[in-house]
Order: sequence, then C-alpha cells, then structure tokens
Amino acid sequence: MYSEELEKLFARRGIAPGDRIRVTVKGRTLEGILMPRPEFGDSGAMVLKLPNGYNIGMRIGSRAKVEKQGGKKTTFEFPKAKLGRKEGLPEVSIIATGGTIGAKVDYETGGVHWLLEPGELLYAVPELKDIANYGVINLMSIGSEDMGYKDWQEIAKAAAKELSRSRGVVITTGTDTMHYISAALSFMLQGINGPVVITGSQRSSDRGSSDAFMNLACSARIAASANVAEVGVCMHATSSDTYCSFMRGTRVRKMHTTRRDAFRPINSPPIANVTREGEITYTDEGRVRIEDGGRELRVLKGYEPKVALLKFYPNSDPEILDYYISKKYKGAIIEGTGMGHIAVSPHDSRYSWLGHIKRAVDSGMVVGITSQTINGRVNPNVYTNGRLIAGTGAIYCEDMLPEVALVKLGVLLGNHRRREAAHLLAKNMVGEISERSEVGQQL
Amino acid sequence: MYSEELEKLFARRGIAPGDRIRVTVKGRTLEGILMPRPEFGDSGAMVLKLPNGYNIGMRIGSRAKVEKQGGKKTTFEFPKAKLGRKEGLPEVSIIATGGTIGAKVDYETGGVHWLLEPGELLYAVPELKDIANYGVINLMSIGSEDMGYKDWQEIAKAAAKELSRSRGVVITTGTDTMHYISAALSFMLQGINGPVVITGSQRSSDRGSSDAFMNLACSARIAASANVAEVGVCMHATSSDTYCSFMRGTRVRKMHTTRRDAFRPINSPPIANVTREGEITYTDEGRVRIEDGGRELRVLKGYEPKVALLKFYPNSDPEILDYYISKKYKGAIIEGTGMGHIAVSPHDSRYSWLGHIKRAVDSGMVVGITSQTINGRVNPNVYTNGRLIAGTGAIYCEDMLPEVALVKLGVLLGNHRRREAAHLLAKNMVGEISERSEVGQQL
Repeated sequence: MYSEELEKLFARRGIAPGDRIRVTVKGRTLEGILMPRPEFGDSGAMVLKLPNGYNIGMRIGSRAKVEKQGGKKTTFEFPKAKLGRKEGLPEVSIIATGGTIGAKVDYETGGVHWLLEPGELLYAVPELKDIANYGVINLMSIGSEDMGYKDWQEIAKAAAKELSRSRGVVITTGTDTMHYISAALSFMLQGINGPVVITGSQRSSDRGSSDAFMNLACSARIAASANVAEVGVCMHATSSDTYCSFMRGTRVRKMHTTRRDAFRPINSPPIANVTREGEITYTDEGRVRIEDGGRELRVLKGYEPKVALLKFYPNSDPEILDYYISKKYKGAIIEGTGMGHIAVSPHDSRYSWLGHIKRAVDSGMVVGITSQTINGRVNPNVYTNGRLIAGTGAIYCEDMLPEVALVKLGVLLGNHRRREAAHLLAKNMVGEISERSEVGQQL
Repeated sequence: MYSEELEKLFARRGIAPGDRIRVTVKGRTLEGILMPRPEFGDSGAMVLKLPNGYNIGMRIGSRAKVEKQGGKKTTFEFPKAKLGRKEGLPEVSIIATGGTIGAKVDYETGGVHWLLEPGELLYAVPELKDIANYGVINLMSIGSEDMGYKDWQEIAKAAAKELSRSRGVVITTGTDTMHYISAALSFMLQGINGPVVITGSQRSSDRGSSDAFMNLACSARIAASANVAEVGVCMHATSSDTYCSFMRGTRVRKMHTTRRDAFRPINSPPIANVTREGEITYTDEGRVRIEDGGRELRVLKGYEPKVALLKFYPNSDPEILDYYISKKYKGAIIEGTGMGHIAVSPHDSRYSWLGHIKRAVDSGMVVGITSQTINGRVNPNVYTNGRLIAGTGAIYCEDMLPEVALVKLGVLLGNHRRREAAHLLAKNMVGEISERSEVGQQL
C-alpha cells in the first residue's frame, strides 16, 4: 500500500495499480502505468511505468493533477502459441532455467518474478517456427544469482541428454552469473559435437527495449545451423538490434549492469556473429561440428565447491588465506593487480601476502593467480614481486578470466587428484587459454 | 648463473650478459641481448631481449650456433639533463613514487627494479623544458602493488604542499594500483584548485614501445596549462602514440595487463584529451580552475584500513562477512553481480548472504554494494533479491566503481563517525557518482 494520502487520492479518482494515468506537476506532464508500491520503497512516492519501460518514483505535492486515462488495464500477459512441427527442420532443444528472459512483472511487488511459458516466447518470436522444431524443457526457475554448482550439474546433465537427440541446445538463464554458468558447462560438457547456446535478456519482455526476442531468435539460429561444437553465450553485440555475437563460454563476461550488449568477448574474438535473419559469419576461433558425429560426449560429474575467489587490493588482509585454509578449502584464485602482482614488500609487513600464499600452497591448496584488469595475460617474470609469488608454487593462469579460473578449478578438483588439477589449471582445455604470441616464453 | 652447459658455452664464445648475440637453431636466427638468468627461471634456458623489447627464454640443443655480435655492451642508462629554468613558464611539481616509469632493467635478475632519476626523463623528453619549470621530489620508490594508505597519505601531503607553490602537480607511480591511488588522492585532497596529474608507464623506458615519455609530456601539459581543478590519471588513450586522456581519478580503471591504453574511463568520459604537442580538448566533465584561487585546500588526514572488498560469486562463502566482523572491520564493499545482486534464496541456504549482510550491518559495519560488471549502475529495486539486500541497511553505491567505493569508505570512516560515513557513501563528493539520467528514481 502507498501512503494514506496517496491511497485516498487514488480512491477519489478511481485509480488502481495497472491503470494508465496522467500526472501534471508544475506544467510538466507524465503518462504511464501506475505500479504498486515497491516492497522497500518510499510509500509517499508513486511509481509509474513510463512508455520507455522504465519505472519512475515521484513524490507529488497537493497541487499535482492526477487523472485516470482510458484503455485496458495492463496485465503484461502474452497470448501463447502452440508448438507445431515442420518437416525437414533440425531439432533444437530449449532448456529454460529462469532469469529475466522468462520474467514478467509481478503486481504484488512492482518488481519482476521468474515465470516462463515457452509458448509465450514462441508467440512473440514467430520466426522460431521456421528455424527448427523444438523440444522445450522447463528445468528450473531460478535467478542466476541464486544458482550454484548443483544447478550447473543439473543443467549439464539435461544438456547432454538433449544433445543426444538434437542438433543444438539453447539454454535460457538469468544474466547475472551467465558467464559463470557458461564456463561451468564448457568444462563439464567434454567432447560436445554441436552448439550449446546460452542466452537470456537484460530487459524483460514487457519492455519495449527488451532484447529477449532477438537473443532467442539468434540463439535458435546458432543451435539449428551454425557449424560449431562449442558452449557459448549468444547475446546482443551492439546496443541496437543489429546482430548478436556467439561468444565462447570461457571467454565472455558481463561488463555492464543494464546495457543490452553487456556481454563482451574477452581476450578472444567471438566465435561467430549472427543476425536475426540467420546470416552467420565465423571467425576462425570455434571448433567445428563433425557432420556424422565422431566425438564422444562425456559429462564431468564432480565439482569441488571449496574453491575461493579473492581479490587483492591495497591494505587487503592476507590472513584471509589462513581463514580458507582453516575451512579446509582445496583451492583459491587470487585476482592480483596488473600482470598478477600482489603486495610482497609493503612498509607494514602485515599486508604482505607472500608467506600466506606459501602456507596455502604448502597446506595443499591449489592457488591460481589471475588479474583484476580482466583483459590481458598475467606474467610472473617481469617484476620481482611476480617471481617471488610464482616461487611459492602459486600458478599463474595466463590469459584466463578470474571467474573462469574459479569454475575450472572447481571442476578440476571435483574430478581429478590435487596434483593433476594443479597441472591442468594453466593448460588450455576448451579454449579458455590462448598460446602466447611469441615463440618461447615472453618474460 | 645459467646451467653449467650454458655457462661453458658462453665462456667459449666470450659472451656475458649484456652482450648482443645471434642464435641460429634449425635455420632460424634470433638476435638480441643476452640477459642474466631470471631468479626463478629454467637455468637451462637462455634469455634474450629481442629488438621489440620482449624477453624470450629458449632451450637450445647442441647443434645450435651461438655467436657474439659487435657493438656496445648494453647498460640501459640514459644520459642526464640538468634542470634549467625559463622565465615566464608556469611552475610544475613532479613527485616520483616508483613504478615502471622510473624503472630500469636490473642485471642481477633480468627483471626490472625501481630507480628514478628525473634528469634522465628530462633528457628523454626534451620538450618538457618548454612546458614549465620543474621542482622534482623523489618522495619514495615503491612498486604500486606494495603501496598502502600510509603511502597515499604521504603523497597527499606532498601534493598539497606542492600545490601551494605550483600551478599543477605531476605524480609518477606504478600502474598496478594507480586507480586506487588516484581515488585516494581524489578524496584526500578536498578543494584543490589546479590539476593533480597521476601518470606512469606500462612499458619501461628501455623498450622501444615505452609509453613513459609521451605520458610524462602530456601530463606536464595538463599540469602546466589545463583549466581544470581535478585529480586525474593521464595515460595513453589509444594503443598508438596519438594522444593521452586525462581521466577523473575516481572514474578510471586499469583494464589490461600490458596495453599502453590500459587505463580506461569508466561510466564518465575523460575530463580532457591532450596531445604531446599540447593541444587540449575538454569535455564538460571537469571542475574548472579559478584563476585567482578562491578555493581552500584541505587534506583529509584520516584513513580506516579495516575496510574490505569482497566479491560475491556462485557458491561463495557468506561467512567471510562474519570473519570480518570478528576482526572488527568497520566497513565492507561487496562486488555483487549485475545490478548488485547477491544470492538470497539458493537451494543450499549455506550460500545465502542475506542473514550475514544483515548481521554485519547490525554489528555496525558499513556495507556498500557495487557491481563486478564494472560498468553501469547498481539498483536494488528491480528484482526481489536486490530489495531484500537493501532492506538490511546495505547501501547501493550507484555507478561508483568497487575500488573507488573501497577507498572512499576508508577515507570516510577515517574522518567521520560511522553514521555520517554511511550517509555519504552513496552521495557524490568529487564526481565519483553521477546523477541518474531520469527525473526521480529509475526503478
């Protein structure tokens, strides 16, 4: 409920949430749909959904004019389309897991809750019918920030099952941890022979600027016809609706909170670009699909959740490593600065990480070093601090993203002995690390 | 020392580190300067510095041909220029603190150690003499990854002193934590009335591709003549030597391990762009300098080091907050996902952060929420998880960078009571936060 004052005003005007209203304050007029009061918002500020899809909260004085507009009360519901079948089209499986792409506005809170009915999206993206025949699995309905390794394992299992009968798989997820999910599936699904396309949307489907429909169409195009055998993320490549990029699952990162082109390829070009109409252009990055099979899909089932991702920063407390040792963690990825540097000789030795890293390695923890710059390659051999840290047995992770290193270490420790996991951490497995550009070792 | 085998080979050929040599293996020839064995390197691999500045380590078989070339033994030393004075030029102070810009190769390790003699850089950048008259302070010689808040305080004090007699100040630092340093100086130096320009280099001055000279020249241009009163970072704007950007100290981040244009403006355009020749183009971002003073410089002296920067990720351990409570931390900045989301309802409740965040806030800790997407603005009001987290009293930090929020919170808690610090955290102070683009609150 809004404040008593506002509720009285609405009652007088016969206005209720969902109605289109017009507010005039000091000669300025705004039109929009009245939303219910947000759970933690200011009860004296009314919330309008503007035609551009944004919500605006406004306190209005007694001189403001509030009028009810005509038109249907908003319910934000799409009609549904029935899933038909067309002969000759490839099979594509859609696995829905939750997230904005399947979200609708919830009138109780004025926010967005997880709901997905595939028929609605098929109605909204009519060309899907001409791209493939679909099997739709509503696997789970979880916001990606609430997902963990058990969800990844469940998705991997479902994807493997679908891959055995489909040409490609589209997995819809929330965007917040989409690049962790894509990294997990990249390592868990070994030897795939078709596209596994992870997609979602930055803006929900009830907004004019929603990217849900184009992302889904482009993902279906990749799954149905791209000549790749890769796990990747397919999302808007630009902030307008020009085309999408299919980016390797271990080389992509959410780089903006709200932009539609938030997912950027890192340290490696996209595998392909794809238009909504189905034009696919490839870089030479991706593994190709073998037409008649010939690869054996193997799901790596284990995952070790006791791996930590830590960030080094000035005056950061290196005893955090001892905390993880005491909690019996098996691995840790440290985001160093620059080429993977961490304080070794600060004025105040309490802030030196060297002894703590050595203790962690000696205790059996696999410690990987990455960079918080996100782009570029770590290198322990340029400066003394790097050499000292590498000397403890910590492993410099080349040009692998910190988040990818975290997930990779979880998969490695869940399926291999410590020694083998440490050996594989900085070795390329599925395209997550690239060779250095010079012969020999660049120091 | 290299391996016995290599040392014998060098002795036979009269070769010593610093000599230019030519190595021919299987018809391929490489020329470069023989470097000493790296501290932790493979003693059987000889290290050559190639003409492009990169070092390469190579194991050679018995059939390889190794010859000594003619020419002077490399010492990597610049001649020095004397600091003269020219009438009519503005005063600029250069404060050297360490880092690659003042680094030379150290023959003991084959790596780079900190050394700066300003006369050398003035010799290498002759136009400096026509830009300003200089006072040069060799304040400290510390790699930026080893710097902490006490170093920042010392630099702030020196900069304030120099600002009282100079038009502008140039501070040379290492690049690894340069954006933490620039954020610290932005908050510590309140009410400056001139440019405080932080610069450095990604590649040391003995390399052909070094950015040291242009960065220093452009920084001197900003300090001597830009009409701004801002703390900022002045570094290469592109990967070639076209121009530099002067970026607000709270709106800049190192985004690549090695590129010369690693420092990128985030969520705000650069304050100005500047060419080596001194052409300055402004955006309307910067505070202008008041010609006859009129601002009062005030150094915020306190800093609370017990502030933590944590990253949320799938299956991350929320008890880490309890660890910081037990260590009597006063503040924590959490890097959430997307718009500032953190797990609240995962399958396994051990991974829910909600109760732990509430406990931290209730215990008196100031908890700020930022995003690991780096770009964009956090917003707790779109999804339920965000609303629940904001409901604990955690503060959503708008479009402020996580590293900037960390440093700001350290400064605030070092100079204000908890309540005031919490109040100011998400309020704009020196341009680190921008207003939302719509009237009212975008939900």
